[in-house]
Amino acid sequence: MTLSIIPIFGIGSIEPDADLAKIINGAANTQGTPIETGDCLVITQKIVSKAENRLVKIDHQDIQGRRRLIESESIRILRTRGELVISETAHGFVCANAGIDFSNVPSGYAALLPIDSDRSAQRVRSAMRSRQGVEVAVIISDTFGRPWRAGVTDVAIGVAGIAAIIDLRGELDANGRELTVTEVAIADEIAGAGELVMGKSTSVPVAIVRGVDKSWLGEGRARDLIRPAGEDLFR
Amino acid sequence: MTLSIIPIFGIGSIEPDADLAKIINGAANTQGTPIETGDCLVITQKIVSKAENRLVKIDHQDIQGRRRLIESESIRILRTRGELVISETAHGFVCANAGIDFSNVPSGYAALLPIDSDRSAQRVRSAMRSRQGVEVAVIISDTFGRPWRAGVTDVAIGVAGIAAIIDLRGELDANGRELTVTEVAIADEIAGAGELVMGKSTSVPVAIVRGVDKSWLGEGRARDLIRPAGEDLFR
Repeated sequence: MTLSIIPIFGIGSIEPDADLAKIINGAANTQGTPIETGDCLVITQKIVSKAENRLVKIDHQDIQGRRRLIESESIRILRTRGELVISETAHGFVCANAGIDFSNVPSGYAALLPIDSDRSAQRVRSAMRSRQGVEVAVIISDTFGRPWRAGVTDVAIGVAGIAAIIDLRGELDANGRELTVTEVAIADEIAGAGELVMGKSTSVPVAIVRGVDKSWLGEGRARDLIRPAGEDLFR
Repeated sequence: MTLSIIPIFGIGSIEPDADLAKIINGAANTQGTPIETGDCLVITQKIVSKAENRLVKIDHQDIQGRRRLIESESIRILRTRGELVISETAHGFVCANAGIDFSNVPSGYAALLPIDSDRSAQRVRSAMRSRQGVEVAVIISDTFGRPWRAGVTDVAIGVAGIAAIIDLRGELDANGRELTVTEVAIADEIAGAGELVMGKSTSVPVAIVRGVDKSWLGEGRARDLIRPAGEDLFR
């Protein structure tokens, strides 16, 4: 039942069209923690965006151009303050600056979110299976702020091979009464756990989460983590 | 650098005025995973509320009385829908039903949040130090929903002996430019990681998080996780 969160070092700089599964697998082998069937890989969005060639040229001094880029990646603006824009992306994510990274990318570039981050996760999972011979779950993580609570946490923006949400509705609590709110967003909790061993300025873009409950493995997608607008009291 | 999340089984039912440090320590010893200096304990709010005698009698059929109880534990109501109330508690937490538990408590009772959950965390930490001889960090966790994203995650409502937020502002990114948003809410990520080994209907109210970065240990409080209203675009 113990969960281990293992950072993968030595992944280095990721170039467009990089074979992430091969690189991650190699780095894990090199450091002596080979990836095993049943593991869940947490991969930061940034290296996925780089591998998928989602870098765009920008002039970091051009505030207007920066704003236009954010708007072009948004389907709805919720709030703005100064340079900060909180908007909804085409994926349905509500986050700062449409999830565009302006730091930790090559100078003169910004990194857009993957076009379909569930598919990105699925692609790594398939490659790990077919070419590395291990059956893993994959979570693509990104760093989001949230209302009311200070600081940022990592959440799941892409999911493959694992449930995004575990639905315990209807199971009885310890006193035999029905539980009411029990849809646990495990993919977000796993993404946050991965972040704990990654840090922000070090070069650890992937973590292995080992020991996840086998009943969680299976179908899941980051879409499941998006609260339908009609059920959202704050949209 | 590997982080281990270890569930503590066998804690059993917690009575008012229970000695949590002693009970947790005993259960960890019994299962062969003694608590060590440098560990971070994640303790679910529910057993803290029980130990601190925060149970109140309610009639589960009395919707009006339930609503009055929620309102009495709130300083501001943000939204309501049906029986659901999203409000701000005296602690500053914005959550459903003022954090009151109506399930997984003895029949005819509800469990209120600890009056001062940072102090609750500090109390366990002090007792672990003075009576069990180990220097640990303590996070009291609770299960909150959030806007925009479906499902619930565990977050920190009490913190002792560890930073709630790690501030990386001003550190340079891998390309030598300054990072912009880098206040990482590690206490929330640790609470979520703990939840992954606890489940909701099993009887695992405590997890050991082993291997946390030593630089995180020190002063911290859940108050740090509350976004000041003036900086909050959604309050």
